[in-house]
Amino acid sequence: MTAHAHARQPISTGDIFGSHEGGKLSVESRLPLDSIRNLSIAYTPGVAEVSRAIAADPELADTYTWASRLVVVVSDGTAVLGLGNIGPSASLPVMEGKSALFKAFGKLNSIPLVLNTTNVDEIIETLVRLRPSYGAVNLEDIAAPRCFELEQRLIEALDCPVMHDDQHGTAIVVLAALRNAARVVDRPLEGLRVVISGAGAAGVACANILLEAGIRDVVVLDSRGILSERRTDLTGVKADLAARTNPRGVDGGAAEALNEADVFIGVSSGTVDEAVLATMAPDAVIFALSNPDPEVHPEVAARYAAVIATGRSDFPNQINNVLAFPGVFRGALDSGARRITPAMKVAAAAAIADLVGADLSARCIVPNPLDHRVAPAVAAAVAAAARDR
Amino acid sequence: MTAHAHARQPISTGDIFGSHEGGKLSVESRLPLDSIRNLSIAYTPGVAEVSRAIAADPELADTYTWASRLVVVVSDGTAVLGLGNIGPSASLPVMEGKSALFKAFGKLNSIPLVLNTTNVDEIIETLVRLRPSYGAVNLEDIAAPRCFELEQRLIEALDCPVMHDDQHGTAIVVLAALRNAARVVDRPLEGLRVVISGAGAAGVACANILLEAGIRDVVVLDSRGILSERRTDLTGVKADLAARTNPRGVDGGAAEALNEADVFIGVSSGTVDEAVLATMAPDAVIFALSNPDPEVHPEVAARYAAVIATGRSDFPNQINNVLAFPGVFRGALDSGARRITPAMKVAAAAAIADLVGADLSARCIVPNPLDHRVAPAVAAAVAAAARDR
Repeated sequence: MTAHAHARQPISTGDIFGSHEGGKLSVESRLPLDSIRNLSIAYTPGVAEVSRAIAADPELADTYTWASRLVVVVSDGTAVLGLGNIGPSASLPVMEGKSALFKAFGKLNSIPLVLNTTNVDEIIETLVRLRPSYGAVNLEDIAAPRCFELEQRLIEALDCPVMHDDQHGTAIVVLAALRNAARVVDRPLEGLRVVISGAGAAGVACANILLEAGIRDVVVLDSRGILSERRTDLTGVKADLAARTNPRGVDGGAAEALNEADVFIGVSSGTVDEAVLATMAPDAVIFALSNPDPEVHPEVAARYAAVIATGRSDFPNQINNVLAFPGVFRGALDSGARRITPAMKVAAAAAIADLVGADLSARCIVPNPLDHRVAPAVAAAVAAAARDR
Repeated sequence: MTAHAHARQPISTGDIFGSHEGGKLSVESRLPLDSIRNLSIAYTPGVAEVSRAIAADPELADTYTWASRLVVVVSDGTAVLGLGNIGPSASLPVMEGKSALFKAFGKLNSIPLVLNTTNVDEIIETLVRLRPSYGAVNLEDIAAPRCFELEQRLIEALDCPVMHDDQHGTAIVVLAALRNAARVVDRPLEGLRVVISGAGAAGVACANILLEAGIRDVVVLDSRGILSERRTDLTGVKADLAARTNPRGVDGGAAEALNEADVFIGVSSGTVDEAVLATMAPDAVIFALSNPDPEVHPEVAARYAAVIATGRSDFPNQINNVLAFPGVFRGALDSGARRITPAMKVAAAAAIADLVGADLSARCIVPNPLDHRVAPAVAAAVAAAARDR
C-alpha cells in the first residue's frame, strides 16, 4: 500500500502523471518583451550597459542578474526517495518538485541540474565550472557515504551556501520536533536518551545536530548494530560518529539500544520490533520516519509512546523537509553567508519549533508544511545566526 | 553615441539598470502547491510513481519532465555583443535576455549556464555531464575561432540540437533578408555576387548558408583581405572557406572585392570606405550589421544601394536573430531532430522571408522582430525540413 492511498482525498495515478506532463517548472521573463523599447532594455542594445558595468565591477552581478539568489538542486540520482539508485533522468521529477517548493515557500528561483556522473571529483569540477551561474547548491538524493565527502569538499570548493538536504533538512526538522516533544513530555531536551536507527545521510546528520543542540546521550544504530568505539568495521563518518556518541558504551543492537531509551528516531527504511519498543522509558517519543512505510505503524507506536511523528502527510506530526530548506537557503542568501553553519541549522530548528506556539500538543509538535509563516521565520533566524558569527 | 540613444522613445540608464535588478528571469511552478493533496502529487509521495516509471522506461522522461524541451543558453563570456571577452558573469544579463526571448517567442523554457572555463574540452565535458538536465544547447557569445571547434565537437558529443546562434542565427536572418532583397531588385538569388566583410562567427556562417542556398559567387574578407587559396596564412575554418568561395580568384582587399559586387554584408565591427561602395554594381544591396556602429551609416549607404539593412532597431530592415533562433529550436525540438542541419537553416530563412508577403519593399525585407507569426512559421518549416531528411 503506497502512502497516497491514505491521503485525505484520493489521488489517482492519472492525477499524478497528468500533472507531470511537460514537467513542473516554467521559466518566465520578469520583463515584458512586447515592444521594441522593452526589447531594447532587456536585450540589445540596452543590456550591453549592464554587461559593461558588471565587467568593470563584478560584484554588480549580484544585483543585476539572477545568479546570486539562484539555488541549483543537484543530484546524480543515486538515492532517490526510497527508490534507490534510479539514475539522473528518473530523479528529475523529484528535483523539479524541489525547485517548485523553493519558489512556493522561499520565494527563491531554483533550477534542477541532474548529472550523469557519480564521481565526486567530476561533480565538484562541474559545479566549480558553473559557479558564475548560481548562488547556492542544494544537494539531493545522493547516496551515502559518498554524499558526506561530496558535501564537505563542495563546501571547501565553493564560496556559497551548500547543503545536502537529505542530511540537514531532515535533521533540522527532527530537532524542531524533538524540542517540542520534550516540551510535551516536560523533559529537558539535553537530558533525553536518544536512539537513532540508521547511519545514512539522515541518521548521521540527525546525530550531529542533536549533539550540537546539547543532547548528551545519543546512540546510533547501523545495519550491524550500535556504533561503538569497540566496533572494528567502522571507517569514515561512522567511525567519527562512534567516537562522539554512545557515551555509556552500550554494545549490541536495537534491543540493547532502546532499553530505557526516551526517544527512537527511525531513518533506516527498516522495521523495529514491538517487543523492543515496549522496553523504552515512560513517556517515550517515537519518530518513525521511513517513507512510505514507517519503521512502526503509528497505531502500534501509540501503545508505547507519548508523542509520535512520521514522514507521512496522513498522520499527525509530519516531519517534512519543506519546513526547513526554503527558509534555510533564503536566510543564508539574505545574510550573504558563505556557509550554512551548525549554529544556523540549530537556529532554524528553534524557529520551526517556536512557531507551533499555543497549538503545542502531542499531536502537534511541528507546524503544518503549508504554513507560510514558517519559511520567513526560519530565514530570519538563520540570517541572524549567520550574522552572529 | 550608443544605439539606444536613437530608440523611438528615450531609454535612460536608470530604465535599463532598474529593469535588471534581481535579474530578468523567474522560475515558476506549473502546479499549485497550496494543499497537502497538491503537494502529494507534485512532490512526495506522488512523484515517486513518476520517478519509478522513468526508471523503468527512460524515454518517459521526455514526457514527464521539462528536460527534453529545455534550452540551455551557454556562454563562456569571451565574445559578448561588441564588448569582447568580458567573462561569464558580465555575459549573464545577455544570456538571461536570450532565455527570456526563447519563452516569449518560442514558448520554450530556457536557462542560462555561464562557465568560468574557456577550454573547449572542459565545456564539452561539462555539458555531457549535464546532458540529462536539458534538451538543446544554444551557444552564445563564444569567441572565434574556438566557437567553430566547440560547436562541431558538441554536435558530435550530444544527441540533441546544438546551435551557436552568433553563427547560424545571424546567417539565417541574413539569408532571409537577401532572398527578399533579391526580389526587390528583381534578380535571381543564385546569380548575385556577394561580399562578406568579416570571417568570424557570423561571417563564416553567412558564407556557408549562402553557398548552401545556391549562391555561387561569395567572397569573404578578413582583416588581411580576401580569403583565397593563394593566401598562405589561412588555417582551419578560413582555409576551408577559401577553398569553397571566391570562384573568380580575386586577390586584394575590400576595393578589389566590392568592385562590381551586388551585395555587401558587413559583420566585421569595422568600416567600409564610401569610395569603395561607389564601385558596386547598380541596384546594390548593403547589409551593414555591426552594432552599435554599422560599417557604413544607412544614409551614406543609400547613395549607392537600392536596399539597406542594419542590426539596429532604429532603421528599417533590422537583421535581428530573434527572428530565427526561437523558431529554429522550437522546430528542431517539435520534430525530435537530433541535429540542426543546413537544410533546416535554409528552410528557416525561407519561412522568415515569405512572411513579409505583400509588405515587401526596399524598406521592408524582413518581418518586424515582434511579429509573433514568425516563430511558429519558422518552427513549422524547420520541423518539416527535419522530417524530410
